[in-house]
Amino acid sequence: MHIVHVHVHVKADHVEAFQHASAENAGHSLREPGVARFDVIQEREDPTRFVLVEGYRTVEATLQHKETAHYKRWRDTVAPMMAEPRRAVIYTNVFPPENSPFSTE
Amino acid sequence: MHIVHVHVHVKADHVEAFQHASAENAGHSLREPGVARFDVIQEREDPTRFVLVEGYRTVEATLQHKETAHYKRWRDTVAPMMAEPRRAVIYTNVFPPENSPFSTE
Repeated sequence: MHIVHVHVHVKADHVEAFQHASAENAGHSLREPGVARFDVIQEREDPTRFVLVEGYRTVEATLQHKETAHYKRWRDTVAPMMAEPRRAVIYTNVFPPENSPFSTE
Repeated sequence: MHIVHVHVHVKADHVEAFQHASAENAGHSLREPGVARFDVIQEREDPTRFVLVEGYRTVEATLQHKETAHYKRWRDTVAPMMAEPRRAVIYTNVFPPENSPFSTE
């Protein structure tokens, strides 16, 4: 599993608009065959901070995602909402292992 | 959903031992009724850095988790492996919403 955490910090007056745009993007993204997981979570202590928790079945799927209309729409919609550039961190799964009954698949 | 990301940085010679102890703890934790998700992920660029991605159904479940034998065993086992104190960040879910077909439940 190829896991990407995208850390996003939005301007305070764009929190609701970011939630809306990101939930829409996440719903579309989950329908991509290479996407196993696409969560949007919001920090409890600072609601202007979010993480997009993206789970891809392959590295290729991460590239295909960037070519979709919904990703490009999200990217352009949220660009002016950013308080600072967003930051992506890439992970691999330790637990659950691939094909486990507890995995996202 | 009450989501906790625990950021862990371990000493380089403890990476495998940390993986083993954390996978065991995660497997036990998933059997707690209040735990919906318990992933262990490892940073691609720096394999000494991990995140425990914990999803609890209630705040009470986070407290009950801390009382379990498997949590206490994990805490004591990994204490000497830490390169720096671990850091927990608490989130709430934006997407998927509660009780959605895409949620972890």
